[in-house]
Amino acid sequence: MSITPVLLCGGSGTRLWPLSRKSFPKQFVKLVGEETLFAASARRLSGPGFAAPVVVTGSDFRFIVTEQLAEAGIDPGAILIEPEARNTAPAVLAAALHLAAADPEAIILVAPSDHVIPDAALFRSAVTAGLVAVAQGKMVTFGITPGHAETGYGYLELSGTPEGDGAAVPLTRFVEKPDAARAAEMVAAGNFLWNAGIFLFAAKDMIAAFRSHAPALLAPVEAAVAAAKPDLGFLRLDPAAWGGAEDISLDYAVMEKAENLAVVPFTGAWSDLGGWDAVWREGAQAAGGVGSSGPVTAIDCEDVLLRSESEGLEVVGIGLKNIFAIATPDAVLVADMSRAQDVKAAVAALKKKGAKQAEAFPRDHRPWGWFETLALGNRFQVKRIVVHPGAALSLQSHFHRSEHWIVVEGTAKVTIDESVQLVTENQSVYIPLGGVHRMENPGKVPMVLIEVQTGTYLGEDDIVRYDDVYARGQGAKG
Amino acid sequence: MSITPVLLCGGSGTRLWPLSRKSFPKQFVKLVGEETLFAASARRLSGPGFAAPVVVTGSDFRFIVTEQLAEAGIDPGAILIEPEARNTAPAVLAAALHLAAADPEAIILVAPSDHVIPDAALFRSAVTAGLVAVAQGKMVTFGITPGHAETGYGYLELSGTPEGDGAAVPLTRFVEKPDAARAAEMVAAGNFLWNAGIFLFAAKDMIAAFRSHAPALLAPVEAAVAAAKPDLGFLRLDPAAWGGAEDISLDYAVMEKAENLAVVPFTGAWSDLGGWDAVWREGAQAAGGVGSSGPVTAIDCEDVLLRSESEGLEVVGIGLKNIFAIATPDAVLVADMSRAQDVKAAVAALKKKGAKQAEAFPRDHRPWGWFETLALGNRFQVKRIVVHPGAALSLQSHFHRSEHWIVVEGTAKVTIDESVQLVTENQSVYIPLGGVHRMENPGKVPMVLIEVQTGTYLGEDDIVRYDDVYARGQGAKG
Repeated sequence: MSITPVLLCGGSGTRLWPLSRKSFPKQFVKLVGEETLFAASARRLSGPGFAAPVVVTGSDFRFIVTEQLAEAGIDPGAILIEPEARNTAPAVLAAALHLAAADPEAIILVAPSDHVIPDAALFRSAVTAGLVAVAQGKMVTFGITPGHAETGYGYLELSGTPEGDGAAVPLTRFVEKPDAARAAEMVAAGNFLWNAGIFLFAAKDMIAAFRSHAPALLAPVEAAVAAAKPDLGFLRLDPAAWGGAEDISLDYAVMEKAENLAVVPFTGAWSDLGGWDAVWREGAQAAGGVGSSGPVTAIDCEDVLLRSESEGLEVVGIGLKNIFAIATPDAVLVADMSRAQDVKAAVAALKKKGAKQAEAFPRDHRPWGWFETLALGNRFQVKRIVVHPGAALSLQSHFHRSEHWIVVEGTAKVTIDESVQLVTENQSVYIPLGGVHRMENPGKVPMVLIEVQTGTYLGEDDIVRYDDVYARGQGAKG
Repeated sequence: MSITPVLLCGGSGTRLWPLSRKSFPKQFVKLVGEETLFAASARRLSGPGFAAPVVVTGSDFRFIVTEQLAEAGIDPGAILIEPEARNTAPAVLAAALHLAAADPEAIILVAPSDHVIPDAALFRSAVTAGLVAVAQGKMVTFGITPGHAETGYGYLELSGTPEGDGAAVPLTRFVEKPDAARAAEMVAAGNFLWNAGIFLFAAKDMIAAFRSHAPALLAPVEAAVAAAKPDLGFLRLDPAAWGGAEDISLDYAVMEKAENLAVVPFTGAWSDLGGWDAVWREGAQAAGGVGSSGPVTAIDCEDVLLRSESEGLEVVGIGLKNIFAIATPDAVLVADMSRAQDVKAAVAALKKKGAKQAEAFPRDHRPWGWFETLALGNRFQVKRIVVHPGAALSLQSHFHRSEHWIVVEGTAKVTIDESVQLVTENQSVYIPLGGVHRMENPGKVPMVLIEVQTGTYLGEDDIVRYDDVYARGQGAKG
């Protein structure tokens, strides 16, 4: 009896800006340790006893998901694409329906993909311990032993103190995020655990729970799964049906109403990395509480997190206390440690003033690879373009710019009007204004190309598409 | 009777790192207001009553000096190049000897080029007021009315409290940088002024003072001036002779010993911008003491200086107090305001660990213009190269790299082996490995070129020079 992990990967949190942005949220970033949170989550729920994972994500992230799974050496069972973000209830129901179609008894572990759980083996033991309750028709939620009186998490009230044997305990009720006094009371009481938002259940039980407690969600999500379309290895849920599903969390829609719940206590370390203060706490620290990442020099600093996200960016802190400073090539955030939850408001302020850094990174990920602008002048732009092996850009032309392409790594197959040629390292081609062209990587290694554009208008929307394997439209990006 | 300003421009201060670095020190940077400190200093001492300035600077800065003077619309009388930095005494003596050769009675105003004096007209009045004392054979120093009990400046003790009419007052003695208590006593006493290091004198009087008080400096500096060589509009002091001059300040060598001194009080605002705390104090501040420059968002900040030195770099501060954060594309400094004087130590630490940011900027200034690296891979490098109108790079070749040049602004005259061609916007040329080549800008506007190098070794020292208008050697840079 194997467990199918369902990794929820739709987040767009901004509390870890500038590293986490809407276009590339925190689960895909290396925040703690050497792996991204998503890769670590997938790896944590792999191996004996686990089936290939199902990932539920948004369209913008689908190629990041496949890239990071490939890097981690994990083959997904399915990647469901949500046409738009609808919180956890529709996502979990869609995954349950998808898996139930093959096996209504399928056992599912739903987990967010942006949490930190350093002891993966201990966590897998807790998951295994929950199977007993699942066999009895229960839905299991995992409760974390509180390390401190945290006000940022919801709590699970148990009918008694856990026995310490790891066995499931009946749940009395869910408790919303408390104030500080109430949090302290609950931690002292001993029968309250943090709600980690991780659930283990049989597919049919979860579907039945939705039928009882959130019946209005069933019809649209069933329709979205039934009409889902395979697309290059992804399964796109039907947008029209999906649009009818309520935006609601699994806790609110189902869990807080269900009777057949049990809690498996998890005594290991856990964090949802809900802010830079949490990243500082969870990460390694030198003497004086100095956490650092990248080329950082800390002089007389105490209880600080200093991060440089680029090898070419030196960060220096002098005489700082309770400060975090996060530096990227296009954005720097410096804040008092106590203000970690206000980063969200800062991002909103940036968005309001139109700063592209609020949501986007300089490196723009596309189905075929990524690009970034290296220099932008009045009438020219220089880009670095990286194309995955086997990938191709659309056949396209521009009204306002010519392009020089110089291949610096790998080999490109370049179509210009009627001619097709291979262009390899240290060779260049010229795409005249109006020329119909396509760039492909026919090789086995990434192809890196420097593009120098000149013209009066250099926007991404100056594009006419003639043919696109990724089915994008006129004027759409990339 | 006109006054010749002598602008001392040799500094390599690190207290305003990362904006001021050894390769491009603070006088050349826009720190306060819209002009660089050097340009503002030159402009302050121009107009009726002032002759063309003499600039004393190092070889590395000579083209920055000419560029910034040209931008400010000021023609220099002479630019003396110090073969190596030797503090202020040899520099002032060299300028005095150079000017005395044409006119021993020449009246000279020596001023550092990295000070802030917002009221230029008031300062010129003070200078004019000093002419009376100079006519009496005095050497005049300017004393700033202390705004606070500063421990970072030397003081001038007067024989009495200034009359307030701006007239020169006899100097009793120089006072070294005091401790806080002594500074407070002096400010309370009323007959102490800050020593601004600005001096007005007749050339012959200064030379006589050196003869009396620092005779050992005369021979080497006289020889260095006598053997100075004109070079593209600069006057290079003779290196061998200059090497024999002691490294010593004008105050120590001469002023503290001279008897014929007078002080002209200056009641206007003045700062030597000796640290980021001073930049914060001297600059504009919004409510709550928030100083900012560039794209900055400050949320709940108090008494902070937040600077972004690039349009593409967003800086966000949240809940900060008494902090300065200075962000550039390759270095970020965050420090407590009280630790402004420790920036120097931080730069020393960076230098020790080999970080190029300690001394150099990504943009590398050369006689012919500048360049910067846009992207660096294992086997490729992309540069932006800007060549001044009329300027030329050396005729050169490389053993380890080929180059693609794409002109994106202006027109280049390109020599490759036996061929010479004009290459203009949106055209490219290829320089094969080993090809003997030269790039010139024959036009009237700056020429901007994107260079894509590929090869196994991409260091600046892979260069064979055949001919160089700037007389640089094999393997030397650029």
